[in-house]
Amino acid sequence: MDGETPTPAMILVRPQMGENIGAAARAMRNFGLGRMRVVAPREGWPSSRAAATASGAGRVLDAAGHFDDLPAAIGDCHYVLATTARPRGMVKPVLTPERAMADARTMIAAGQRVGVVFGPERAGLENDEIARADAIVSVPVDPEFASLNLAQCVLLMAYEWRRASVAAPPEIAARAQADMAEAIEIERLGDRYETTLEAAGYFFPPDKAEGMKRNMRAMFARLALTRADVQMLHGMLRHMARRGGS
Amino acid sequence: MDGETPTPAMILVRPQMGENIGAAARAMRNFGLGRMRVVAPREGWPSSRAAATASGAGRVLDAAGHFDDLPAAIGDCHYVLATTARPRGMVKPVLTPERAMADARTMIAAGQRVGVVFGPERAGLENDEIARADAIVSVPVDPEFASLNLAQCVLLMAYEWRRASVAAPPEIAARAQADMAEAIEIERLGDRYETTLEAAGYFFPPDKAEGMKRNMRAMFARLALTRADVQMLHGMLRHMARRGGS
Repeated sequence: MDGETPTPAMILVRPQMGENIGAAARAMRNFGLGRMRVVAPREGWPSSRAAATASGAGRVLDAAGHFDDLPAAIGDCHYVLATTARPRGMVKPVLTPERAMADARTMIAAGQRVGVVFGPERAGLENDEIARADAIVSVPVDPEFASLNLAQCVLLMAYEWRRASVAAPPEIAARAQADMAEAIEIERLGDRYETTLEAAGYFFPPDKAEGMKRNMRAMFARLALTRADVQMLHGMLRHMARRGGS
Repeated sequence: MDGETPTPAMILVRPQMGENIGAAARAMRNFGLGRMRVVAPREGWPSSRAAATASGAGRVLDAAGHFDDLPAAIGDCHYVLATTARPRGMVKPVLTPERAMADARTMIAAGQRVGVVFGPERAGLENDEIARADAIVSVPVDPEFASLNLAQCVLLMAYEWRRASVAAPPEIAARAQADMAEAIEIERLGDRYETTLEAAGYFFPPDKAEGMKRNMRAMFARLALTRADVQMLHGMLRHMARRGGS
């Protein structure tokens, strides 16, 4: 393969425009992919236009393999996926990008090499190229407006690769990093509000008081308060109590 | 909202380049979205550059709402999602695009209006704009190469919207459309191969024969053969048997 990291190779077949190769390189870098292969690019190789567009992703181009035809480019791959907007009646598994990249991950984890093949900008892959793939990947575009450009198609596959690879969903990660209040702080906050509001006659009528207190505690617990939030809520109460007492 | 179909509004805040607005419109159309809102675009509104880039997606621009600020643009929304590459320590739910669009779908199915907010190309959304959102959407880019362009970000959200909305996965749909062989045809194919290979002395030694036959049947069953495949396999066998007999 083109590098050391076990990731799929993104194989661009007869790309027409250097700019699109560069944009594809950027899309790959966005989602942690570094292995590109180019097959017979129309403007030759290396491509200065690709390099200009890639900017920060230039090392993807520098490391890219250059091949004369698709069989050579996929020669060392154990599992080949062909991307196409419209599967053309060929009887091969047709996978969503999500499923395809989950499968790629399984293959790669087992030590196999995976190639994802993209056709030229307008024409797409030819039938005898699709025939060489193990499976077809079809992006679920609106059939009335199916024209995805090359870099966008690479972007979606790279996104799905990363999605299949990233362990912790960001909602959990973000919560893990925030300076969240501990339960004891929430408890004391509830105590303080309860005492103050009790004194203010808020929990009325008496037969509703228990339920009202429980609801208040439940709300504080549900809000995922940070330490700063708790301090602010203490401060707000302190000021309200002062006004009430004046 | 900007149209009749219940889909989220894609809200572009202070977009700098008309080309990016046009590319965003195309990305929306790719995945069946038609509702765009633009907030204070730098080059004014309507934008001829946006229209030139949008080409086939021009009707998204024609129908787009134009607003002076974000509060006006999200005014009628019940649920607002702010996209940002790096959540900035704000304590809000941080959702993956997948989760965000699944939530959007739930909200919309319940009759609510959803807005997805995108910041300007380089600067991104300001903190007081993010503060107005119910939740943050964070695309899981590689932190070392996090620069997604505006249209790519719109593309990924639109893709996830459609993914959350499309019912039948394409692998099932493709299989449903192909002229698949019926089980009885597979059974007869197996019978024919078994008889012919039996006569040819293939199932040897005798104590392995049953297992070999079972494996062959299992393979035929697993291949998802079409009628045409079955005919071809019959034809291949017929020819092999003739050669063997000559």
